[in-house]
Amino acid sequence: MLSGPSGSGKGTVLKELLAKNNNLFLSVSATTRSPREGEVHGKHYYFLSKDEFEARIAGDGMLEYASYCGNYYGTPKDAVYEMLNAGKDVILEIEVQGAMQIKERCPDAVFVFVMPPSMNELKHRLTDRRTEDAETVAKRMQAAVDEIRASYQYDYIVVNDTVSEAANTLDEIIRVQKCSTGHMKEFIDEVLEDE
Amino acid sequence: MLSGPSGSGKGTVLKELLAKNNNLFLSVSATTRSPREGEVHGKHYYFLSKDEFEARIAGDGMLEYASYCGNYYGTPKDAVYEMLNAGKDVILEIEVQGAMQIKERCPDAVFVFVMPPSMNELKHRLTDRRTEDAETVAKRMQAAVDEIRASYQYDYIVVNDTVSEAANTLDEIIRVQKCSTGHMKEFIDEVLEDE
Repeated sequence: MLSGPSGSGKGTVLKELLAKNNNLFLSVSATTRSPREGEVHGKHYYFLSKDEFEARIAGDGMLEYASYCGNYYGTPKDAVYEMLNAGKDVILEIEVQGAMQIKERCPDAVFVFVMPPSMNELKHRLTDRRTEDAETVAKRMQAAVDEIRASYQYDYIVVNDTVSEAANTLDEIIRVQKCSTGHMKEFIDEVLEDE
Repeated sequence: MLSGPSGSGKGTVLKELLAKNNNLFLSVSATTRSPREGEVHGKHYYFLSKDEFEARIAGDGMLEYASYCGNYYGTPKDAVYEMLNAGKDVILEIEVQGAMQIKERCPDAVFVFVMPPSMNELKHRLTDRRTEDAETVAKRMQAAVDEIRASYQYDYIVVNDTVSEAANTLDEIIRVQKCSTGHMKEFIDEVLEDE
């Protein structure tokens, strides 16, 4: 589970990570909002009707979901488990509330928060985009503070000082999970049975 | 905390790890047994008298200790904390019981268990040494089973298939701990205060 405030550079880090790690699968969210120009069903989002989305919720088919500006957004379970069963590592780029829903439901999930090196640097990054006015930047800064307050509940904090280092660290975090005792339980069982 | 049965190759892996990671400090145990030929105080062991050792226990100066064949063995706190305060990463090569004592007292410690790829391979390694008779090998195998049963309580299991890979994995485990939220708490605090 990868979260981080707007301006943390989480998207860029993720892109670099996906380019270097072929075993990763980036989960595609579902939404009831209309596709924007160029958006492809199954690539950018799964575009579902409200009825379809609510049927999935009712059938316990969503790992997490939220309602935002009158539309549903969420993570369909099936694609995630299909990839996990195929031996892939699945990444969800997800906001804090969704991550906290998953924390309750999937104790094995690993939670990584991408942090800006400082609030000052975050402000620079948000301002340098030049696409947002001062008011939007102020709102994003406030949202970032709220998100960073939630970061204490994550497992790892990756400071995005340089993109390539942050992507390397993420890659190492993924590799190291494979020798966590939770992941290795079956191996220990086998070694002991072998005896 | 690094544990693993005799024949797991833990010592060889540790040697390779120490050669490649300059920030590591290998903790030196204390004992009340007499130095053997060539053993250097402060390098192989801290050789203490029984009174000195018991005074350290009484003064809460041991991270863990045990009595074995009429002698004390243990880890003096002071050197470990001196190195930690100097920014070093400290490794304790420690048997399972000592590790479990530390687990209770140091919630921040990270526990890694070095595993042989299989019991069969372990037996080969113990037999190939040719220094031990069949009875000793059988005893070591039984001891290994007991230790591996305790490995479920460790944080990470590193399978020593090849020494260099196992040493790399250990190195990654150490690096990744630095972005665990426990380690990053002060950084998060600072970022939030900065705002």
